[in-house]
Amino acid sequence: MIAELIERKRDGGELTRAEWRRVLHDFTEGRLPAFQMSALCMAVVFRGLTRAELEAVTTAMVESGRKFPPGSGRPRVDKHSTGGVGDKTSLLLVPLVACCDVEVPMMSGRALGHTGGTLDKVEAIPGFRSALSLEEAQRQLERIGCVMMGQTDEIAPADRELYALRDVTGTVASVPLIAASIMSKKLAESLDGLVLNVKVGSGAFIPEPQHALELARTMIAIGHAHGCQTVAVMSAMDRPLGHAAGNALEVEEAIAGLRGEGPPDLLKVTLTLGAEMLVTAGVVRDVREGVVLLEQRRADGSALQKLQQLIEAQEGNPAVVDDPALLPQAPLRAVYEVPDEGIVEEVHPRTIGRAIIELGGGRKLPGDDIDPAVGFVVTAKPGDKVERGQPVATVHARDEAGLQLGLAALGKAIVIGEEARPLPVVMHRVTVADMDPSP
Amino acid sequence: MIAELIERKRDGGELTRAEWRRVLHDFTEGRLPAFQMSALCMAVVFRGLTRAELEAVTTAMVESGRKFPPGSGRPRVDKHSTGGVGDKTSLLLVPLVACCDVEVPMMSGRALGHTGGTLDKVEAIPGFRSALSLEEAQRQLERIGCVMMGQTDEIAPADRELYALRDVTGTVASVPLIAASIMSKKLAESLDGLVLNVKVGSGAFIPEPQHALELARTMIAIGHAHGCQTVAVMSAMDRPLGHAAGNALEVEEAIAGLRGEGPPDLLKVTLTLGAEMLVTAGVVRDVREGVVLLEQRRADGSALQKLQQLIEAQEGNPAVVDDPALLPQAPLRAVYEVPDEGIVEEVHPRTIGRAIIELGGGRKLPGDDIDPAVGFVVTAKPGDKVERGQPVATVHARDEAGLQLGLAALGKAIVIGEEARPLPVVMHRVTVADMDPSP
Repeated sequence: MIAELIERKRDGGELTRAEWRRVLHDFTEGRLPAFQMSALCMAVVFRGLTRAELEAVTTAMVESGRKFPPGSGRPRVDKHSTGGVGDKTSLLLVPLVACCDVEVPMMSGRALGHTGGTLDKVEAIPGFRSALSLEEAQRQLERIGCVMMGQTDEIAPADRELYALRDVTGTVASVPLIAASIMSKKLAESLDGLVLNVKVGSGAFIPEPQHALELARTMIAIGHAHGCQTVAVMSAMDRPLGHAAGNALEVEEAIAGLRGEGPPDLLKVTLTLGAEMLVTAGVVRDVREGVVLLEQRRADGSALQKLQQLIEAQEGNPAVVDDPALLPQAPLRAVYEVPDEGIVEEVHPRTIGRAIIELGGGRKLPGDDIDPAVGFVVTAKPGDKVERGQPVATVHARDEAGLQLGLAALGKAIVIGEEARPLPVVMHRVTVADMDPSP
Repeated sequence: MIAELIERKRDGGELTRAEWRRVLHDFTEGRLPAFQMSALCMAVVFRGLTRAELEAVTTAMVESGRKFPPGSGRPRVDKHSTGGVGDKTSLLLVPLVACCDVEVPMMSGRALGHTGGTLDKVEAIPGFRSALSLEEAQRQLERIGCVMMGQTDEIAPADRELYALRDVTGTVASVPLIAASIMSKKLAESLDGLVLNVKVGSGAFIPEPQHALELARTMIAIGHAHGCQTVAVMSAMDRPLGHAAGNALEVEEAIAGLRGEGPPDLLKVTLTLGAEMLVTAGVVRDVREGVVLLEQRRADGSALQKLQQLIEAQEGNPAVVDDPALLPQAPLRAVYEVPDEGIVEEVHPRTIGRAIIELGGGRKLPGDDIDPAVGFVVTAKPGDKVERGQPVATVHARDEAGLQLGLAALGKAIVIGEEARPLPVVMHRVTVADMDPSP
């Protein structure tokens, strides 16, 4: 009786692996009514899940759908970020890691709330097709070692249906359910290793470091329970990452990054995450060695070449790599100059992220069309000393109204004062060794 | 957006009166999906309701249906018990109070779990019709001052639908939701006063005194917020009330009680509750005066006559009052004798209540037919000194198997030992003056 299972969870008890499997199976098959599932989810919001339940829920969600067939010998790794503003690391990491003889089958999502989405960014490349079937993705992975695609309907359907229910029943805010949802999709890629980039700071989905750390630990626990080497890197999202924010602008900055011309914070996060990916793949012994290998693949041009291969394989125009002006361009630009001298105290990522939506570069409703060309390039970073009238940012807009809106947003986002206390770019590394013993 | 309301309650916030009204209205109209309502109920299980919310929820449930039109001048009161075994006080109270120039429009329910239901008891009277329309009930109330009936579909439909959802989603166990559910049905009677009989002890639905007290206080708060004088009397349910347990047997004991021949504990609880009803009605100044008036109405035969009137008005056979042998009789009886000498330590009400169901006198599933004749008469009370072989109880059964089952149940229910610690018959009186200040 499902009501008894709900009562048990409500009262702080535990459901068995078989019970969770049946609950999720019956729910996905339409045999367990949504009104019971939502009550159970709310009980989980308050009571959490034990390690055993976490593993059971994640397994049941993975097994509700298809998986990528395991790799043909090369190690296979991926990265997941909890999301932020200006975070284009995936566009650098996929080609960088893929040219180290490691497979990267990256499935990602679209922009959500104030944060951007890798899928929207990569689709700013003219012609790029991200809706691949599992078979197409598998063939491409074998051929060139990487793929950047959206989640297909066949991946973890139980998670998709459960998330849709949670979204309208106030039950999204549960660390174990968030962790199980993320991990079920990643584990369906049949990974050997996974690097989680957990953002911290005002622009992160979970701004509080304690909660972000709890999410990281929960995902690591799930990964290890499924035989996937999982580590988490906590990094700053109290300001945008890099300079560019907006889909085509971020692709351009990613290409520049692969040429060694990117902003230092973007390169630092990229190399850290990439090196961790190589460590979990077993290709290098430690992060330092990983950074050296990645720097080499970048410097010799093989990463840029891999990006071109990837774009070509997915029907995009590979010429954008050599000529970023082929990316969508906004017709209007305006430079923002600081109104006062002083120290840049803050560059608020949420203000920038929301302004991109207002400019048309993000969605107000799911399914909305987006304008890939619009956005911001903000060169100012917290701690920078600036003069009055110094240019520190550019708005890229579709029309005059957008330009004005963008300039006003920059006026709010960039706070000039006397001192700055930015978070370190890369903060903590969390591994299974840092975990509390399983309860 | 309902999801935002769920999130607010989940996070410990409060919904406004207008929001609760809309939520319950939309739910009853089928415009708010059950999966959102059940998640909201689970959030309430964990977060509770503030006083203002309690009042708003109860009002919305009352206003989802029809109410008894207000009285024609006479005060109108009722009693509600949280349920127990052998509790036939309603059968005595309705006629007793109604012949003190006070209207008693009692709507009650059927047996639930191990406890009996007033509706099942009164229907043990041959011909008695409890399914009255509101119009019929109103006319009878004006004519003879009392009615004993089931809830019509027109009373608090929002409560009925919500309870059906809570029943299958693990969200029954919430003191504020239980209190609002009970009170919405009572307040639909347009009462001036209400006496709550909150049972305490192993046979009560809420055995722990602290939780029972919390329920009492919550219902008192709702009553007063609706302008209904509400008091609670906490009484013992660590053993059955009176001697008889079983529908027809309880009617017989109630009639005997009105003749002054009933068990002392039954009379004590009846007079206490009845006197409180008269106090809330404003007919007497205090409980002592109320007891004197009720004793008088009992002694002069007017209460028995009122019971006859009531039975006749609802198409039952009024001759049962003079000749209880006209009530359904079980064909087989067996006397239970105690196997050892000693002190009666316990008479477990749940064991007795469950055995009545096994004998056919209660329901295993809603809608089951019941046998009104079967049950027990247990004269032993905790604290009684008994000799080996002393007869202390009788089983009334339909067949030999029932007889054996009943005797075995008595062997488990009646515990003989060396000392007894029964609860006082009447324990506490809780009024609005005993309440914590409203939060």
